[in-house]
Amino acid sequence: VDVGDRDQLVALLEPLHAADIADMLEQMNAYDRRRLVELYDKEFDGEILSELNEGVRDEIIQYLNPEVLKEAVRELDSDDVVDLVEYLEEPQQEAILEALEIADRVAVEQALTYPEESAGRLMQREVVAVPEFWTVGQTIDMMREREDLPEQFYHVILVDPKMRPVAHVTLGKLMASPRKTALSEITEPGFRTIPALQDEGDVAYAFNQYHIISAPVVDEDDRLVGVITIDDAMIVLDLEHEEDILRLAGVGEGSLNDRFTETVKQRLPWLAVNLCTAILSASVISLFEDAIAKVVALAVLMPIVASMGGNAGTQGLTVAVRAIATKDLTGANVWRVIRREAAVGVVNGLSFALIMGIIAFVWFGSPVLGAVIGAAMIVNLFVAAIAGTVVPVVLNWLKVDPALASGTFVTTVTDVVGFFSFLGFAVLVLL
Amino acid sequence: VDVGDRDQLVALLEPLHAADIADMLEQMNAYDRRRLVELYDKEFDGEILSELNEGVRDEIIQYLNPEVLKEAVRELDSDDVVDLVEYLEEPQQEAILEALEIADRVAVEQALTYPEESAGRLMQREVVAVPEFWTVGQTIDMMREREDLPEQFYHVILVDPKMRPVAHVTLGKLMASPRKTALSEITEPGFRTIPALQDEGDVAYAFNQYHIISAPVVDEDDRLVGVITIDDAMIVLDLEHEEDILRLAGVGEGSLNDRFTETVKQRLPWLAVNLCTAILSASVISLFEDAIAKVVALAVLMPIVASMGGNAGTQGLTVAVRAIATKDLTGANVWRVIRREAAVGVVNGLSFALIMGIIAFVWFGSPVLGAVIGAAMIVNLFVAAIAGTVVPVVLNWLKVDPALASGTFVTTVTDVVGFFSFLGFAVLVLL
Repeated sequence: VDVGDRDQLVALLEPLHAADIADMLEQMNAYDRRRLVELYDKEFDGEILSELNEGVRDEIIQYLNPEVLKEAVRELDSDDVVDLVEYLEEPQQEAILEALEIADRVAVEQALTYPEESAGRLMQREVVAVPEFWTVGQTIDMMREREDLPEQFYHVILVDPKMRPVAHVTLGKLMASPRKTALSEITEPGFRTIPALQDEGDVAYAFNQYHIISAPVVDEDDRLVGVITIDDAMIVLDLEHEEDILRLAGVGEGSLNDRFTETVKQRLPWLAVNLCTAILSASVISLFEDAIAKVVALAVLMPIVASMGGNAGTQGLTVAVRAIATKDLTGANVWRVIRREAAVGVVNGLSFALIMGIIAFVWFGSPVLGAVIGAAMIVNLFVAAIAGTVVPVVLNWLKVDPALASGTFVTTVTDVVGFFSFLGFAVLVLL
Repeated sequence: VDVGDRDQLVALLEPLHAADIADMLEQMNAYDRRRLVELYDKEFDGEILSELNEGVRDEIIQYLNPEVLKEAVRELDSDDVVDLVEYLEEPQQEAILEALEIADRVAVEQALTYPEESAGRLMQREVVAVPEFWTVGQTIDMMREREDLPEQFYHVILVDPKMRPVAHVTLGKLMASPRKTALSEITEPGFRTIPALQDEGDVAYAFNQYHIISAPVVDEDDRLVGVITIDDAMIVLDLEHEEDILRLAGVGEGSLNDRFTETVKQRLPWLAVNLCTAILSASVISLFEDAIAKVVALAVLMPIVASMGGNAGTQGLTVAVRAIATKDLTGANVWRVIRREAAVGVVNGLSFALIMGIIAFVWFGSPVLGAVIGAAMIVNLFVAAIAGTVVPVVLNWLKVDPALASGTFVTTVTDVVGFFSFLGFAVLVLL
């Protein structure tokens, strides 16, 4: 790129998969990226655009020669175009839609009428559907004649006269059966359809839970409108996990490629929430200023109690948040789980009460101080265990994403309880 | 189950998918689970066993009538049996292997010779491969005659005379082409093979990155030994995410179904590590006991500085750990990312220094105290930003899983720096 040798660049990038070129572009700095894109020019492939994350994609669309952009978009399947344009600004969206042939354009525009993150946005509209009474021979002949078969498909969908899917047949079964076999004799068990308005997270969950390879999407009247394949579901599953993991850490939707100001904007709100809860904890401490002034060792030891509670609570809440996401924690077993977590909290509390009690005794030469920190440790680890499970369950029940808000609540509880129990016991016993 | 009505139970469970029955079993308590399994008896399906998590699966295998178990296992594909037996104890493993037909048994035993979590364990051995010079017609005729076609397959693999895969053809293309077409004319672009010894996490990454549906697995001599399909890769991807998210929270391999003692065992080590780091932070505080005894407000405010640093560090490290896992953070962009994170740290530090400085001033009426906490906040958020990225990168470079150990390191750094900078500045300025 530095010497501006276009032929050499094309020769270098030629053997790479679009996803790898996209990753490379994401890892460059903006200046090199622009030069590379402008140099690559005509060779720029639509699939690279599909693979880029939003920030970099928006940037590159601006650099691209409009003719190259139009060409790039025309090569893509309708679901990839939807994915590409759905988060673009109006004028950019228009420019891309105009580049499409009229049939594709209508398909994309219809897909955009479904709500964001719904099955309707995720599906491809190219389907292979036949009347339910057809035979293997009829189906194979139809497929040999049809010219617009989808790039990838795994099932032939059987539909009734009202275009409602009733079953499907795998291509493998179709090939292995004699021509005169009725399709209805070789359908797959466990056939499922997906409502077009279903949330894409639930779609991905169903694919993973039931090992679905592809499933027809239906509208409110149960009519076939498209099909979702496992590769799209896998991408959604990956994104949902990413979201969960980032939310647990209080980072909204961060990625390494976000611009500086976006990153600051994503992180500030959570730090602000944390500041409020930290001030709350500090105000608990300020209730005990007199005690601390008399026994400074209290100030030294108090963060240990709070920190242990915070860690134990985070462990429990992470397991609970995951279990809620995978539907392993439900009304049926919530009480048993809470009881078990509470028991774990008591056992951990007793263990660390003993250890920390002895350490405090040796460190400050005061058996009473050892007893105080031990007692506070038991209380705080018990409360942490309960809060770690109850908080995410209650948030989920209130329809708040437990991954997003549990951490703050739980650590606030463990900080407040940790400081209050330790300093409170100290006042009762020492002063 | 309570009334012991077997017929009613069978009728109730009949329409459910094996994965849902497995989830239900996992959510029951051990006593009910045992009664249900014993009552269900002959109807117990091998697929339910495949869907259960390890703890519950081991338990149920013990309750099951040996005849029922044998019958259940015989229905499964070889890769599911491998999955079932690989973590069982020797005698149980033997019992299941003996139930298999000799050919299946050999297949399973061969799969078990591959290392745990390798592509060889994940693959199914049933493949559809044909000589590379065949035509569409020959292939379809072969498939109609073969009786042992895999349950699900998506490609016909073309192999050379030494059984080395050279390309593959989708079933869709196969059906849509005239009988006399040579297979070599309709092969898919982007064909990839997977080495049998490759780590299953890398396999899942490749499926997700390159949108692979199925790929042949080859041994060291590049000969075809099996095939991995996207549904297996999706399960691995799901498990890897689960592992990452739990490790970030310091829970080894927790699940809600682990027994009480296992849960305690998983969580104790991380709490113990945390205790050590908390004591380290406390010993930093103890250096400043005199200062705290004189100005108790220091004890009230110091956890705020540490807490803000811990949160900012966790945000940065989570983004970094994810980026390392998805190969978005590499040698190529690590310096740019660190510089950007440091800049974010400075901006966040300045914002919260101002806010917290004013709060401390108002709260304790001391402008100097406000300046001290502000300065400490800037230092700690800057250090947190650097540590949040550098720690996971260095751990990864040392081949330690960054998800597992980063959190502890980063919060230790932010606690120590937070307490030291705040109390240190206070000593310099106030005393």
